Amino acid sequence: MKIALDAMGGDFAPKNPVEGAVAALRDFPDISIVFVGDEQAVRAELARQNATGFDSRISFHHTTQVVDMKDSGLDSVRKKKDSSVSRAVDLVKSGEADAIVSAGHTGALVAAATIKLRTLPGIDRAGLAVLIPCDGGVFLLIDGGANLDPSPEHIIGFAVMGSIYYREILGCPSPRVGLLNIGTESSKGTEFAQECHRLLSSAPVNFSGNVEGHGIFRKPVEVVVCDGFVGNIVLKAIEGLAKSFFSWLKDELKSSPIRLLGAMLSKGAFISIKNRTSTDEYGGTPLLGVNGICIKAHGNSSARALRNAIRVARAAVEQRINERIIEAIQSSNHEKISATQTASA
Amino acid sequence: MKIALDAMGGDFAPKNPVEGAVAALRDFPDISIVFVGDEQAVRAELARQNATGFDSRISFHHTTQVVDMKDSGLDSVRKKKDSSVSRAVDLVKSGEADAIVSAGHTGALVAAATIKLRTLPGIDRAGLAVLIPCDGGVFLLIDGGANLDPSPEHIIGFAVMGSIYYREILGCPSPRVGLLNIGTESSKGTEFAQECHRLLSSAPVNFSGNVEGHGIFRKPVEVVVCDGFVGNIVLKAIEGLAKSFFSWLKDELKSSPIRLLGAMLSKGAFISIKNRTSTDEYGGTPLLGVNGICIKAHGNSSARALRNAIRVARAAVEQRINERIIEAIQSSNHEKISATQTASA
Repeated sequence: MKIALDAMGGDFAPKNPVEGAVAALRDFPDISIVFVGDEQAVRAELARQNATGFDSRISFHHTTQVVDMKDSGLDSVRKKKDSSVSRAVDLVKSGEADAIVSAGHTGALVAAATIKLRTLPGIDRAGLAVLIPCDGGVFLLIDGGANLDPSPEHIIGFAVMGSIYYREILGCPSPRVGLLNIGTESSKGTEFAQECHRLLSSAPVNFSGNVEGHGIFRKPVEVVVCDGFVGNIVLKAIEGLAKSFFSWLKDELKSSPIRLLGAMLSKGAFISIKNRTSTDEYGGTPLLGVNGICIKAHGNSSARALRNAIRVARAAVEQRINERIIEAIQSSNHEKISATQTASA
Repeated sequence: MKIALDAMGGDFAPKNPVEGAVAALRDFPDISIVFVGDEQAVRAELARQNATGFDSRISFHHTTQVVDMKDSGLDSVRKKKDSSVSRAVDLVKSGEADAIVSAGHTGALVAAATIKLRTLPGIDRAGLAVLIPCDGGVFLLIDGGANLDPSPEHIIGFAVMGSIYYREILGCPSPRVGLLNIGTESSKGTEFAQECHRLLSSAPVNFSGNVEGHGIFRKPVEVVVCDGFVGNIVLKAIEGLAKSFFSWLKDELKSSPIRLLGAMLSKGAFISIKNRTSTDEYGGTPLLGVNGICIKAHGNSSARALRNAIRVARAAVEQRINERIIEAIQSSNHEKISATQTASA
């Protein structure tokens, strides 16, 4: 299995992508990596890390351009044809790679993947499917930021794909779906939210109604759907709070010798929660709905997060996620999905 | 100072509002309370709590209707004229009370206050201004859910009011304002967010650009502006995460005798953070922009939260918050605010 890694994507590129790739090469003997980016910089980084013994499993695809955070997603595809993210997508399109992993510009990855790979049959818009820890497990939030301004019909697509992904990856036969809203009553929210609620009620998913922000961590549903603007802001807010929480706890525990002693004794509890809530462990988020496996890692990904993003890509390829989404859409739910699509036309 | 308390508002009414009022009457000798709601039920609750000695400081305004969570805000004002929240607003309008405190339906309070009290000169839409704990203090998020679908011009109003409130209440001479968005670059976000960014850049506030969800807890700005849909969802999500965090921590600390011993020694640290992040301590959120002091408490407010919401109402009356907003708008920033208003007309 060959993973195309955007070696120039993310705040700490090429260092962290290369370090993450080396860790993944060590841990997963069945993968090989094609580094897409500035070959010289990548080779220098590999040398700096004394990464030897992988010659037969690594290759390079040299590119000359890098997407800037100020570029729009669409512009980056049109104007920077030789960017690392664009070329990584090309490799999947031509069949030279099985999956893409990128910690770069979300909009650029979404635009390149959507334009070049196209969406799956029955799906109009791709969505980022993010697993989030909660009471007794994880829930999936979709869309985490791929489409900022979707139609209510696109939200149905997110609900369908999220349900299938959750079912296949986490073995839950009939995941419940909730619409992220400001109240549980169907009359609550913007006109957009109300229309989403109406369409979801007859969509081929196990719809449980609206869920509110404070409810989601108690896992009333397995799949939470929302537009990418709200999803991205919520994701980052809970990530920010989790980090600050640990920092406040540290300060408080350090404020007296007795507390510090207590903290040392109960250290394991903090480590366990830190690991559970760390974005590093999830590593990467699949962009569901495009015809190819695309895994988006966080812009500030550590090497460990990138190693785990490669692990997520490997699992998605192995589990043939896209084939399963296509099958599920085409089989039992065929009629209902079609009806939804007609409504959106 | 007389506070009109919506005795029927919230998940635990009239019990918690009455209990909170009794605590506030004890703690703040300069206030009196008019209980707006089912007089018999309120009197029964007062008797149950053995609340004696306040006869000269309490009064009753009997009402016959209660707003249902399924009612729309506008409908509740039009069709339930004798609801507790509507009558409480009437008392402020007629000058019989100085402020309203309600833990009821947000939409009903916003609609009643906006229609009956009208907005302040220079302000088109009211916004809920919520204080949130962060590294080294608190930041203010506005709008926490009063207006789900504001225009970019309304966001400017939120920025102006939020800045004045933060300045007056927290003594920060020039609060920085950030627009909640999915990236820090001005080109990021929906068209709505981009237009907000453009208008904020020339608004009479100390605009610092976009802020992302994971940044807000590090306090890059004192005032975070967003529409009420996003604001409400984010608020509840961070509230939900904070609660789950404590529950996860408790489970982990209980999982071994050594950890439990450690937890007992460092107990003070957990209590300190729990108090810091508890919504009970903030108690109530001012609805800024209406011509009267309206404090919204959380629907599931405890008695302590309602006592604190009354404290917030008392402070807002004492500090003449609305007069200060009007003065600030009319004085130095007169021209710029007017320009914004013309643009929105």
